[in-house]
Amino acid sequence: MPDLTKLAPEQLARHHTQCCDRYEHLRSQHLQINMARGLPSPDQLALSDRMLSLPGHADYMAEDGVDCRNYTGLQGLIEARRLFAGVVGVSPEQVVLAGNSSLAFMYDCIGYAWRHGMCSSEMPWSKERSVSFLCPVPGYDRHFRIAEEYGINLVPVPMLEDGPDMTIVCDIVVSDRSVKGMWCVPKYSNPTGTTYSSETIAALASMPTAAKDFRLFWDNAYAQHHLTDEEIEISNIVQLCEQHGYPDRALVFASTSKMTMAGSGVAIFGSSPSNVAWVLERLKVHTVGPDKLNQLRHVRFLKDDAGIRRLMHQHRAIMAPKFAEVLSVFERDLGQSGVAQWSKPKGGYFISLDVLPGCARRVIELAREAGIALTAAGAPFPGGYDPNDTNIRIAPSYLTLAQITVAAHAITLCVLLSGSEALLDRCPPGNSEKRLTTEIT
Amino acid sequence: MPDLTKLAPEQLARHHTQCCDRYEHLRSQHLQINMARGLPSPDQLALSDRMLSLPGHADYMAEDGVDCRNYTGLQGLIEARRLFAGVVGVSPEQVVLAGNSSLAFMYDCIGYAWRHGMCSSEMPWSKERSVSFLCPVPGYDRHFRIAEEYGINLVPVPMLEDGPDMTIVCDIVVSDRSVKGMWCVPKYSNPTGTTYSSETIAALASMPTAAKDFRLFWDNAYAQHHLTDEEIEISNIVQLCEQHGYPDRALVFASTSKMTMAGSGVAIFGSSPSNVAWVLERLKVHTVGPDKLNQLRHVRFLKDDAGIRRLMHQHRAIMAPKFAEVLSVFERDLGQSGVAQWSKPKGGYFISLDVLPGCARRVIELAREAGIALTAAGAPFPGGYDPNDTNIRIAPSYLTLAQITVAAHAITLCVLLSGSEALLDRCPPGNSEKRLTTEIT
Repeated sequence: MPDLTKLAPEQLARHHTQCCDRYEHLRSQHLQINMARGLPSPDQLALSDRMLSLPGHADYMAEDGVDCRNYTGLQGLIEARRLFAGVVGVSPEQVVLAGNSSLAFMYDCIGYAWRHGMCSSEMPWSKERSVSFLCPVPGYDRHFRIAEEYGINLVPVPMLEDGPDMTIVCDIVVSDRSVKGMWCVPKYSNPTGTTYSSETIAALASMPTAAKDFRLFWDNAYAQHHLTDEEIEISNIVQLCEQHGYPDRALVFASTSKMTMAGSGVAIFGSSPSNVAWVLERLKVHTVGPDKLNQLRHVRFLKDDAGIRRLMHQHRAIMAPKFAEVLSVFERDLGQSGVAQWSKPKGGYFISLDVLPGCARRVIELAREAGIALTAAGAPFPGGYDPNDTNIRIAPSYLTLAQITVAAHAITLCVLLSGSEALLDRCPPGNSEKRLTTEIT
Repeated sequence: MPDLTKLAPEQLARHHTQCCDRYEHLRSQHLQINMARGLPSPDQLALSDRMLSLPGHADYMAEDGVDCRNYTGLQGLIEARRLFAGVVGVSPEQVVLAGNSSLAFMYDCIGYAWRHGMCSSEMPWSKERSVSFLCPVPGYDRHFRIAEEYGINLVPVPMLEDGPDMTIVCDIVVSDRSVKGMWCVPKYSNPTGTTYSSETIAALASMPTAAKDFRLFWDNAYAQHHLTDEEIEISNIVQLCEQHGYPDRALVFASTSKMTMAGSGVAIFGSSPSNVAWVLERLKVHTVGPDKLNQLRHVRFLKDDAGIRRLMHQHRAIMAPKFAEVLSVFERDLGQSGVAQWSKPKGGYFISLDVLPGCARRVIELAREAGIALTAAGAPFPGGYDPNDTNIRIAPSYLTLAQITVAAHAITLCVLLSGSEALLDRCPPGNSEKRLTTEIT
């Protein structure tokens, strides 16, 4: 594959024609492949199939004598809190277990702050003139949608290799008291796979903020979701915040949705004692309590930290080859093309593909026409708008390896087609003196 | 048992002394009986113990091919919606199945209205100058707490024998456009056991309201929870509202919490197509979807309408004798006393006991001192304040029959003790000319 940005216009035109022919052939195959969402595959779900019969006959008593079948127990079973405390990096007393969706719990926490303020707020957030959240971009669309639902302004911050650009973050939070929170996926981030460095995390924990009730919404969704032997560990945000004199700054979220059953997991919340008391006070009004049988089911199945690690190794054995296949096809088809670059994540669920400015929407459209559904263009940006139209989120998890090979080649073809279109637009044949300088930024 | 209100002061004083002696004896027994909450008993929970192993090995596919283990399926499984459609009186297309707590879903629906308005609102409820809800009293404290959480004014309406006083209700809703909703437990109401008559329900469905987006929060929590052969059926509120030109007026809630596992049930929502679309639009942002495996578990266990009825007959077989025992003790100990009256519910979870004005708090205090925990005084009233201090909620479900006999006698003793105290206060011995006219209103 030649570097398209270095081709003479006539060569480029020929390349484009070849791409068009290959694309027509692709379309004629009437593929139907959905790569839009980060769903675990049936193989992954099957790893937890034993849960379908758990907790099992006559097994409903928690270790402290709580009947898990009945009401009560707002904070969650002690044995389940102990099991998951490590995932969120706090003591079991600082864990709250909620429903089957950690996303819903984030939504709820903002609602609680909206009506009552955080534990250290001067007033409910709804009474503030305006509320803003920082959001590293590209990021997770569902986070952004939640903020939009509450009318929270989203302030994008560029995601760098070691996390969000902390010069910008520190500048904004210290000067703008409307900034009450920040969305963070600190490890194997959605979609870039970025892991925040120790320096970034320390800066987040220690930076002065104009808002006294500033909160990090620390969605450690991929805490255990490694793809390599490296198994990155990140700094403990709750401890760091405490050490720097901001004990209530971090609200840590995680869930078992991408460990056990995606739709039937347990949402895990970990934070300071004050934040735990704050959230329990609100939950007391909100709900009759969490599904304790599902917590017990998880305890029986996962057993302990080693059990979690064992299961996550099995996930990796299924996931890693899929990521490797996408990366290998991308490298082969696009490696020297000059029209794309992409992340090589060490964990998580996504590969982030960047194409020439103005081409992402076109690639996604071409793929759709060829029967490959990708995440909507712009989804990883606030308002669904990618200002450079460069980013495409690739979600390999759900497909089989055979489907991935087909889909990855189809995507690279769409990238090459769209890339040569864009380059030809800027420098059509017969205008060959003009230098092509387009580069991905 | 003589009518205390007709005793001469000296007789009353003797009676009071006897009560005091008996109460001292009661206290010496150091009872520990918790009758505060309407928890299902272990016997009742055991009726559904087969669910502890469900859905079971390799059973995770819904009838339309949905993998219940995975994400997706915001509205709930079609077979589960079909199973529960009858409980909320709508077609399966008009059912949404949520988490394990219908109370949480009510809370959430108010939150959605708060931020976005109902489907027919002119503006979000948060933008209204004030929002009020009518609440029949005595009623369900958790409903009131939710409203208070949002800053909604609670407007009490007296509960009559056939439901809320509709003269008052109609007057208020037609004139006050801040009245956006009304809490209703239409069948075997908490705590009075009242069932709304057809006339009451028709009036609720047809009354003009100043607020165009007025909603009945129709918590049919005890739809299937009969205690007698009568098995009362109430009018279909969604159909009636539609017939009267207010198709979106009723939001119907129910749950399986008091059918299967109290903490691990399925919340059921039924309403008009517009309201269903409205709630799904908000849920799409709120959550990744409900726990479909728990829905499948319920489908496998309950199977169909006949299965629900069979299970509810088994509940009745456990519950009815407990209610009968309380009523029998009350009748024997208090029947002629003139200082108490109580409901004889045909379903639901509670008996509502009314004592002499000013005595409820004292009875609950005396009972607590004797080791019997009752629902807090005033709980069934907005703000936890019973203006006449007469009402006591009795929750027999959790206890064994033997405990109930002990607890019921203890309660009647506290009622007699407190009643004779109150009567003596008003007409002490040596002041025997004064007629005792205290009556319960």
